[in-house]
Amino acid sequence: MNIALLPGDGIGPEVIAQAVKVVKAVGKKFGHTINFEEAAVGAAAIDLTGNPYPDATHEVCLRADAVLFGAIGDPKYDNDPKAKVRPEQGLLEMRKKLGLFANIRPTFTFPSLIHKSPLKLERVEGVDFVFFRELTGGIYFGEPRGRNEQGTKAFDTNVYTKEEITRLARMGFEAAQKRRKLLTCVDKANVLATSRLWRETVQELAPEYPDVKVEYEFVDAVAMRLIQWPKAYDVLITENLFGDILTDEASVISGSMGLMPSASVGTENKLFEPIHGSYPQAAGKDIANPLATVLSAAMMFEYAFDLKAEAQAISDVVNKSLSEGIVTEDIAEGAKAYKTSEVGDWLA
Amino acid sequence: MNIALLPGDGIGPEVIAQAVKVVKAVGKKFGHTINFEEAAVGAAAIDLTGNPYPDATHEVCLRADAVLFGAIGDPKYDNDPKAKVRPEQGLLEMRKKLGLFANIRPTFTFPSLIHKSPLKLERVEGVDFVFFRELTGGIYFGEPRGRNEQGTKAFDTNVYTKEEITRLARMGFEAAQKRRKLLTCVDKANVLATSRLWRETVQELAPEYPDVKVEYEFVDAVAMRLIQWPKAYDVLITENLFGDILTDEASVISGSMGLMPSASVGTENKLFEPIHGSYPQAAGKDIANPLATVLSAAMMFEYAFDLKAEAQAISDVVNKSLSEGIVTEDIAEGAKAYKTSEVGDWLA
Ligand SMILES: CC(C)[C@H](C(=O)O)[C@@H](O)C(=O)O
Ligand SMILES: CC(C)[C@H](C(=O)O)[C@@H](O)C(=O)O
Repeated sequence: MNIALLPGDGIGPEVIAQAVKVVKAVGKKFGHTINFEEAAVGAAAIDLTGNPYPDATHEVCLRADAVLFGAIGDPKYDNDPKAKVRPEQGLLEMRKKLGLFANIRPTFTFPSLIHKSPLKLERVEGVDFVFFRELTGGIYFGEPRGRNEQGTKAFDTNVYTKEEITRLARMGFEAAQKRRKLLTCVDKANVLATSRLWRETVQELAPEYPDVKVEYEFVDAVAMRLIQWPKAYDVLITENLFGDILTDEASVISGSMGLMPSASVGTENKLFEPIHGSYPQAAGKDIANPLATVLSAAMMFEYAFDLKAEAQAISDVVNKSLSEGIVTEDIAEGAKAYKTSEVGDWLA
Repeated sequence: MNIALLPGDGIGPEVIAQAVKVVKAVGKKFGHTINFEEAAVGAAAIDLTGNPYPDATHEVCLRADAVLFGAIGDPKYDNDPKAKVRPEQGLLEMRKKLGLFANIRPTFTFPSLIHKSPLKLERVEGVDFVFFRELTGGIYFGEPRGRNEQGTKAFDTNVYTKEEITRLARMGFEAAQKRRKLLTCVDKANVLATSRLWRETVQELAPEYPDVKVEYEFVDAVAMRLIQWPKAYDVLITENLFGDILTDEASVISGSMGLMPSASVGTENKLFEPIHGSYPQAAGKDIANPLATVLSAAMMFEYAFDLKAEAQAISDVVNKSLSEGIVTEDIAEGAKAYKTSEVGDWLA
């Protein structure tokens, strides 16, 4: 197995290092030969090469069987609206060039952490849904985008083809068939032409999946209901920008944001990453929670290599670290807090 | 005072009728002559005239000093992506033609209802923030929008001018000066050209309001923090689509969604409406909660007529109805539930 490692920015390198320890331990236990190749992305890559997704990094990703990715983003670029190169461009270029059109973000609860949810227990207990966010289309990539000559007017273009919607929607339908058989199509069909194409396309596909119940909801309504009654959802499909907002909103409801993994997949390539960001305030302090990245490695064994026992071994040890309190300060709650690297060593 | 009444769809007519009773009672008590002129909008107007915002309705709004609006939307249009005329078009046209560029949506708590919040008490107690959502620009109105010839590709355009951003941002800065002096500019400047213009424009205005602290946050981060720590916010400014999603998300955190009023204002015209929708399932049953519409009438006295005592009289009687339990079934909680019309009579 050839795994590309893209640590990225902020706490990325620290959490990726722990995932590597765990993946190596799994390789040893199950007898797999695992090769790692590391490459730069994001602000780290800008500092090195001037480019947030250098060609060399792209080649490393192309020849790998899976990519394990940390985080991207550096505050020094955030308040400079005129910066020519931004770390996030690297992320977007990577998604586009690797064809990672589906971002899969599960939300589920860990019993030992559920009390950290901002929601009341009865609302969040048993929550279990998964977002399929379209990741290589929409307003993130549409042209034209930019400014008029005087710089007094700016514009972006949201664009979707039936094909792009279809391939994402099919993944959602198939996931729903394996789960509770409810698919929610999230759009803004009362305002946007793109959303009307989404809704129409999903309506056309629905008869091919007669066992799946399909619901259509506006994005603003979902933003409310995710908080009011998150248990109502099973599989949600949506466009890139709505997915960006809603998956982040969803990430806080379980109380376990530091543990939530994600996968971004396409026809050829697969990338796995924690949903948390680069958390620059914690960078270099050996305090960041590595569990989301470690669980992303579990998703990698399952989705990229179809190795369920290996994935389960990782989930099991993560659950054990939680029940035995071998955790970082963000979830230690007064009990002894372990360093990022200590948690990684223990898990491995 | 000339007030245009636009009941609209679903429960709109029922809740507007209660607000009218209360406004009439206030007029009598304080000695104002109040004239009402009613006009159709939304699905109701399509049924009558084929047009969701008929010219006759626009004229009624233009000659009024303020518009009191119920709700818009009928499910018979929602699942028909090809419908030529949709009720929501009426709402958008009304906003545009009346120049209502700022949607003002406060979120605050009512002690007697806070236990209905999906959030834990310590997170939501004392929450008090207000969104200024840009309402006549962005992807709601940008051109081009539509389909390619074969219908296989759809597109929408997000567009903002510096002028549009400036006038909305100034309202936010001024509101912050009268409140806790914190302004949060919500954008997606790491991806969108329009968001970079927003951020740049707000950065340029900031020195004119030296007493206001300005923070810049990405829309996905705000979607999380609104749930995690809503007390962190004071005044938030944002573009049309982000505002649509975030204000609806915000509306559920206080536990008092059925009570939240809003104002949409421009240079010439002012419109007041409850934030809840047309709630078609409840239409015609005399069970809908009229308090958000009644409190919107209070906002009208304050913001359209600068009559604070009149506004206060309405807030006071609403608080009294809550403490004495003269409320509809959505907040009665096992105690006797009053009909929409009974609550209106009691308030008046
Ligand atoms: C960093 C940013 C460009 C990115 C996005 O908006 O997609 C991030 O928020 C995410 O969700 O992965
Ligand atoms: C009905 C719809 C067009 C409208 C909007 O998106 O603005 C509504 O959601 C609102 O927020 O008033």
